[in-house]
Amino acid sequence: MSTKFTDDSLMLHTDLYQLNMMETYWRDGVHNRRAVFDLFFRKLPFGNGYAVFAGLEKIINYIENFGFTEGDIQYLREEGKFDEDFLAFLKDLKFTGSIRAMQEGEIVFANEPLVRVDAPLVEAQLIETALLNIVNYQTLIATKASRIKQVVKDEIAMEFGTRRAHELDAALWGTRAAYVGGFDSTSNVRAGKLFGIPIAGTHAHSMVQAYKDDYTAFKKYAETHKDCVFLVDTYDTLRSGVPNAIKVAKEFGDKINFIGIRLDSGDLAYLSKEARKMLDEAGFKDAKIVASSDLDEYTIMNLKAQGAKIDTWGVGTKLITAYEQAALGAVYKIVSVERGDGTMEDTIKISSNPEKVTTPGIKNVYRIINKANNRSEGDYITLEGENPQQEKRLKMFHPVHTFISKFVTNFDARDLHHDIFREGKLVYTQPSLDEVRRHSKYCLGVLWEEYTRMLNPEEYPVDLSQKCWDNKMRNIEEVKEKVMEMTGENM
Amino acid sequence: MSTKFTDDSLMLHTDLYQLNMMETYWRDGVHNRRAVFDLFFRKLPFGNGYAVFAGLEKIINYIENFGFTEGDIQYLREEGKFDEDFLAFLKDLKFTGSIRAMQEGEIVFANEPLVRVDAPLVEAQLIETALLNIVNYQTLIATKASRIKQVVKDEIAMEFGTRRAHELDAALWGTRAAYVGGFDSTSNVRAGKLFGIPIAGTHAHSMVQAYKDDYTAFKKYAETHKDCVFLVDTYDTLRSGVPNAIKVAKEFGDKINFIGIRLDSGDLAYLSKEARKMLDEAGFKDAKIVASSDLDEYTIMNLKAQGAKIDTWGVGTKLITAYEQAALGAVYKIVSVERGDGTMEDTIKISSNPEKVTTPGIKNVYRIINKANNRSEGDYITLEGENPQQEKRLKMFHPVHTFISKFVTNFDARDLHHDIFREGKLVYTQPSLDEVRRHSKYCLGVLWEEYTRMLNPEEYPVDLSQKCWDNKMRNIEEVKEKVMEMTGENM
Repeated sequence: MSTKFTDDSLMLHTDLYQLNMMETYWRDGVHNRRAVFDLFFRKLPFGNGYAVFAGLEKIINYIENFGFTEGDIQYLREEGKFDEDFLAFLKDLKFTGSIRAMQEGEIVFANEPLVRVDAPLVEAQLIETALLNIVNYQTLIATKASRIKQVVKDEIAMEFGTRRAHELDAALWGTRAAYVGGFDSTSNVRAGKLFGIPIAGTHAHSMVQAYKDDYTAFKKYAETHKDCVFLVDTYDTLRSGVPNAIKVAKEFGDKINFIGIRLDSGDLAYLSKEARKMLDEAGFKDAKIVASSDLDEYTIMNLKAQGAKIDTWGVGTKLITAYEQAALGAVYKIVSVERGDGTMEDTIKISSNPEKVTTPGIKNVYRIINKANNRSEGDYITLEGENPQQEKRLKMFHPVHTFISKFVTNFDARDLHHDIFREGKLVYTQPSLDEVRRHSKYCLGVLWEEYTRMLNPEEYPVDLSQKCWDNKMRNIEEVKEKVMEMTGENM
Repeated sequence: MSTKFTDDSLMLHTDLYQLNMMETYWRDGVHNRRAVFDLFFRKLPFGNGYAVFAGLEKIINYIENFGFTEGDIQYLREEGKFDEDFLAFLKDLKFTGSIRAMQEGEIVFANEPLVRVDAPLVEAQLIETALLNIVNYQTLIATKASRIKQVVKDEIAMEFGTRRAHELDAALWGTRAAYVGGFDSTSNVRAGKLFGIPIAGTHAHSMVQAYKDDYTAFKKYAETHKDCVFLVDTYDTLRSGVPNAIKVAKEFGDKINFIGIRLDSGDLAYLSKEARKMLDEAGFKDAKIVASSDLDEYTIMNLKAQGAKIDTWGVGTKLITAYEQAALGAVYKIVSVERGDGTMEDTIKISSNPEKVTTPGIKNVYRIINKANNRSEGDYITLEGENPQQEKRLKMFHPVHTFISKFVTNFDARDLHHDIFREGKLVYTQPSLDEVRRHSKYCLGVLWEEYTRMLNPEEYPVDLSQKCWDNKMRNIEEVKEKVMEMTGENM
């Protein structure tokens, strides 16, 4: 780094305005007032019917390592924007707040709090940027992966995107998110080491070039590896690659485990069908065909429709960058704040766009499962203290078009939030990554197919309780009055 | 992390297939043969006429920390894919190769080697993935930033994207790349600390909500900060935000430095013009208007065309994710490899798509500057050993449409590559980030405007020397013969 600060921490991985606001709160003496923020997104990505939450593990790491370093403080000092007394305050700052969040792999929807931060105003404000940075990316990729896996179905989906990821963290945490979303393996060895994700890979074109021809390269590979997948498109797939793969597989017989071949360019539908015939005719009916080459859910669906004979799908760029829509747009909004008298007051951000109006108040999210068929009727957002499980008959109505409503009976109300930190202390045991993955798959199965299909899914209901709705309406009225006061005009 | 390996290194931040190939080379005894790889992209992003190279600093960090850790080896052992003798070889592996590369901020084009790795086959192969991961992202963002800055011109461009970046590294290194490409500041405080980039920011909507109204919030901010930019769109920009900003600015007078206001939503063209009038009428003719809200070069150009009164542009999502095209697609191709007799043999990857055919050989890239006007005539790729500066008259011809050619005289041939590592040793002194940025701006100025305009730029000439061209043609012929041998057919 071109810097004299050799220590690094994530405390400064925040927007400058957070520190500016923290200083104002601190000098004004309101910094320890309790504030509640919701982290949520307003619109599902990719036109998908659901999203897959990811990012919690990284958030836990981040909060567990909360604390400014000497270098952080020294940098701020030299920057000259803050005085010593405030810097001394920062130096001693600890995270003392509480965080509730969805578990990783949870199937989630727009406008429901994925993470709820309940902390002294300064602390809640400082962590906004990193939380969004983490959740926005990881949830985007877990969702894209789930979407692709829905098309791949029971075949194998491998994550191959490291070289196109947005820098190193995205490669690493992106492939973890892809695994959460249902992918089966990664090419990134470090992700295998750090997360226990199965690793997969064979060899590259450069090896064939280094050995000058397919036959020699495959033979050298077979001499040095038990499991063999040969990349067959370096020179000419059907005239050199596949015949030489077959030749080597025959020569080595039982000495190797000839898994199959990989296609990485050209007309994958045509080439895979021709290669399948050649493999079958040579007696390698169990040999698999792996394909890669700018794949995503659309190309995979089309290849399947064309009868492509592909068993394993390697997906890179389009997954790891969420190329189709490279940002999720989750936000972090204050929903309740302590007043001078110690009471909590809900806050709202209004907008001329009704879908951008936030939902005030300290809230919980329940998934309403119909016991008769174990399917979800929708999600139900309540104010803290409400317990929908105690209701015999739940009225659920659309949060924008309120005239659309239904009654649900005989249901389980599953609280989607878990306590992660309580008063600064980690109280959550993160399930294993494989448990996360299984949970995600299970939760997806609880949804009607209308919500999970790739194209034009139905809108899944995320409804407010009557109390939550009434509270929102009351807050909107109050803001209107406040703006009238401020401007002397009617809104 | 859900792992027992507490040490981390970037040695395993590679695709599994690299390790597989390394094992084959090692067991075959060819692992120390010299190999040369070119890192390049085939197509400029965003329809832009040029790209801005970035990523070298991170590459230097990566190579300087080359070396497997105990945990890396232990993981590979437990994974069971590699035997002990190969693991022992990895454990002791050092980087002994040479790297030549463009300097950061260099203006670069398709099909020219940005990085040239000349190293023992195993080492060159291992580092491919990380090098691409770094260069693909950083160059993409530096290019997008330069493109946006061309539209912003002499006004201020601020990078605001951390919360939407693809995980933490992208936020950090992306904003550095944006600075290389011409952006003026960042909101990411850690980037300020680690890279010395100027940091910028004011306050968020949440502060206005926490204080319940614009007036109180601005007043509290003014009481605690000298430099004040007030965010005016929390409730109602023109009826509450701007009037209250003016009111507080008047009340505080010389006690603060009222820099101006920030608009973050709504019709920025209309709101900025109205706000400008209000500020002017109140006597704040020097107050600046900062705007943000999903901006990119297209919206900025349109806002300017509409006469928007915006002085400072905050750009987030569309820059830091390169939303328009979220991947560059740079590749790393072997171009020459040592044979058993110690001679170097060039290699080529052919394709039915002529633009995907690689250019074999160990090459250099020169920028041909016409001394008469200090403008670039194009880039000129030679084989190692050629010195275009010694030519009186340089023939430059199009690398695909070879009948298009021109002669250049009275020129300077600037070698675009710098020696970065020589036989494993760092021999390059990275210029300061501000030097990098100035260099980039200077190099952009050497191009005719036809190459730098936003829409439909002319294609900048990247030409091969006659020797380089002849070598390529010879390699193509050889591959055709080889495939004929392999298949018994004509290609």
